[in-house]
Amino acid sequence: MNYCSRCGERLSLEIPTGDDRFRSVCRSCSTIHYENPKIVLGAIPVFDDQILLCKRGIEPHYGLWTIPSGFMENGESVEEGAIRETIEEANAEIQILRLQTVYSIPQINQVHVIFLANLLNSNFFPGTESLETRLFALAEIPWNHLAFEAIRFALRSYLYDKDISDGRVHIGTYGMGSEGPQMV
Amino acid sequence: MNYCSRCGERLSLEIPTGDDRFRSVCRSCSTIHYENPKIVLGAIPVFDDQILLCKRGIEPHYGLWTIPSGFMENGESVEEGAIRETIEEANAEIQILRLQTVYSIPQINQVHVIFLANLLNSNFFPGTESLETRLFALAEIPWNHLAFEAIRFALRSYLYDKDISDGRVHIGTYGMGSEGPQMV
Repeated sequence: MNYCSRCGERLSLEIPTGDDRFRSVCRSCSTIHYENPKIVLGAIPVFDDQILLCKRGIEPHYGLWTIPSGFMENGESVEEGAIRETIEEANAEIQILRLQTVYSIPQINQVHVIFLANLLNSNFFPGTESLETRLFALAEIPWNHLAFEAIRFALRSYLYDKDISDGRVHIGTYGMGSEGPQMV
Repeated sequence: MNYCSRCGERLSLEIPTGDDRFRSVCRSCSTIHYENPKIVLGAIPVFDDQILLCKRGIEPHYGLWTIPSGFMENGESVEEGAIRETIEEANAEIQILRLQTVYSIPQINQVHVIFLANLLNSNFFPGTESLETRLFALAEIPWNHLAFEAIRFALRSYLYDKDISDGRVHIGTYGMGSEGPQMV
């Protein structure tokens, strides 16, 4: 961030009065440009004990598998965004069941919010960003070909819940014991 | 957003190739400037069946009561941010117990993520953004003087759980039946 998006002047890196960290500040129009984490929304669509996954047709991780997920947009709720992403990536209709995981990745300023969902029918097909969409039985999940650690965490937490479910949401942070489900 | 924060040129409002909504695009350096919702993190700090609230010393809603909460910063996890905000606003030490609510406000592009927490001691005092910090018994909660609807939702969901708790997280959206707790 070099220039003020409001007035176009050069930005300075300063600690504003009453703040305790450096921000991009415009000395011309006094705007403080805060930078904050982004939310990634996703769903685990379940149909007859199988999970709908998408093979990514875009970078990063072209060719690897993921659940439907993507950046939350302005003007929507978390559930609406998860439903939208599932339509965009797999043309699949879901009904949200419950929140499954919340997974922070401080290194890249992301929080992944993943819901468990019913896939309402099997009339899905790849969206423009997917090469392939298909159902996987739990024993078939391609653990070595998953695109993102947040997806791995969400799918593992789902398997964990199949055995011992008390309906709690699994909270994880990348690099902090993210290899197994944690409960908060 | 008028100017490119990367190169300083005037921005255009366009639908990028492969996208389906208008974005601020720089025709000079080809940067697409996405705008996404922000996360507000907070905690319900509980001590001897009482809740710690802060009287706001800043706008918006100067003089009204809130739980400790504020914008998530880059480089932290959701739990770390809730703990940080509780220190900043009330100089209070907490231990996160579990996720309590996730509350979307599409109208202002915010998602509030609120944790239930143990307040570890009563040595709290107002931070620079608070006029007063004090413990409220559940019957004393100042419902008519709360600063934000997301806080009202979180506190109501906590009271609801005192009666019927199955440990689930309450999911709400402003304007969509947010007057009572909803379960997803």
